[in-house]
Amino acid sequence: MRQYIYGKNTVLESLKGEKPVYEIYMMKNAKDEKLLSLAKAKNAKVNIVAHKGVLNQLVGNVVHQGVVAQTEGYGYSSIDEIIDAIPKGKQPLLLMLDGLEDPHNLGAILRTCDAIEVDGVIIGKNRSVGLTSTVAKVSTGAIDYVKVAQVTNLSRTLDDLKKRGFWVVGCELNESQDYRAIDYNMPLVIVVGSEGFGISKLVKSHCDMNVVLPMTGHVTSLNASVATALILYQVYNSRHPFK
Amino acid sequence: MRQYIYGKNTVLESLKGEKPVYEIYMMKNAKDEKLLSLAKAKNAKVNIVAHKGVLNQLVGNVVHQGVVAQTEGYGYSSIDEIIDAIPKGKQPLLLMLDGLEDPHNLGAILRTCDAIEVDGVIIGKNRSVGLTSTVAKVSTGAIDYVKVAQVTNLSRTLDDLKKRGFWVVGCELNESQDYRAIDYNMPLVIVVGSEGFGISKLVKSHCDMNVVLPMTGHVTSLNASVATALILYQVYNSRHPFK
Repeated sequence: MRQYIYGKNTVLESLKGEKPVYEIYMMKNAKDEKLLSLAKAKNAKVNIVAHKGVLNQLVGNVVHQGVVAQTEGYGYSSIDEIIDAIPKGKQPLLLMLDGLEDPHNLGAILRTCDAIEVDGVIIGKNRSVGLTSTVAKVSTGAIDYVKVAQVTNLSRTLDDLKKRGFWVVGCELNESQDYRAIDYNMPLVIVVGSEGFGISKLVKSHCDMNVVLPMTGHVTSLNASVATALILYQVYNSRHPFK
Repeated sequence: MRQYIYGKNTVLESLKGEKPVYEIYMMKNAKDEKLLSLAKAKNAKVNIVAHKGVLNQLVGNVVHQGVVAQTEGYGYSSIDEIIDAIPKGKQPLLLMLDGLEDPHNLGAILRTCDAIEVDGVIIGKNRSVGLTSTVAKVSTGAIDYVKVAQVTNLSRTLDDLKKRGFWVVGCELNESQDYRAIDYNMPLVIVVGSEGFGISKLVKSHCDMNVVLPMTGHVTSLNASVATALILYQVYNSRHPFK
């Protein structure tokens, strides 16, 4: 399914990516030579438009910075596709988001996942944000590189993954260890809960261990994309110690 | 200066905080016993309103969840006030944000600063987001605990801080070391740049060293609040190693 994406960096990244880009809509005063030459190289049709209204009609009244592109839509992957694509010899790392709602958080999380070898993200079909154009924009192109699976039943998916040798680590306050206490050198699913309610009870019962971030102040939690990044970088650092 | 804040958690945190809360506006269908009893304890006048329009008039068309409060405004601190408030024996830690624009990022960053003993945040007066009610909401109350100084000249402020014994660490790609390479046990100012352009040239020239996060994927940067949190937690972990 084709869809529109917007914003200079997002369009730029999609032109560098593997997926087809069909058309570019660029406002006269937003002409960008780098973008135009990439569009030419990718055979995307370029439409120079005079009025903002043309772009607003395509993507709504958003901060599109005068650039919109029609691209191939964000397809979801299956769990099997994600696992099959993990390079041989790499320690698998999956991220499960249980009920995450904010597209800005999902976009930021995809950016982090691209940065440090997360093999795939698993989200639920209900009560979760999916791959929208806001997520795409905030991800600054990472959405094109990080595989995302949408599943109907997170608990059942965890059961399956455990049978395939994965360990499940929940980011959760109760009965948890300091996030630095664990050696993350094993096939892992990191589970992060929703912004308001954390990990749901059933999913929680599937976690092999829980980790928590040290927090010594007054607020009781961090932003979801921040907390996720801290855990994921800890996994990365545990697997690639600094020498 | 008084100002309005909104959102259930934000109002709840402000009622738990030290600053005066003058009035609460709560929609009939958003009545919350915990909030009401805290308001009573704090002598805040409670107004139950029937129509959303009343709240929208106070804070605009935002996601206020039926709760608005009039509180004492977010005052800025001076650099001296921040430094004087650092507990004796604590290794000082300041964060300078050079041109950060997104209120969601600033809110998330304040949340992180509250969590791990950042003594104060320094922002510029121009081209930067300040302490707005959106920042307050996203910070989930951290704005009441983290001191923020607004200065006219970031470079001059760094000069002053260096004379007082601070070391300046920039988060910057060029001529930088892995963020895990440094022992952060010294009085520190961590400098983070803007979402689009990083650290400005002049400020950059005042950094004693630069650190960079390992990134092995396709995107070239992380979300600003995510990158800031990763560096700040590294400082925290370096000062409080896990045993």
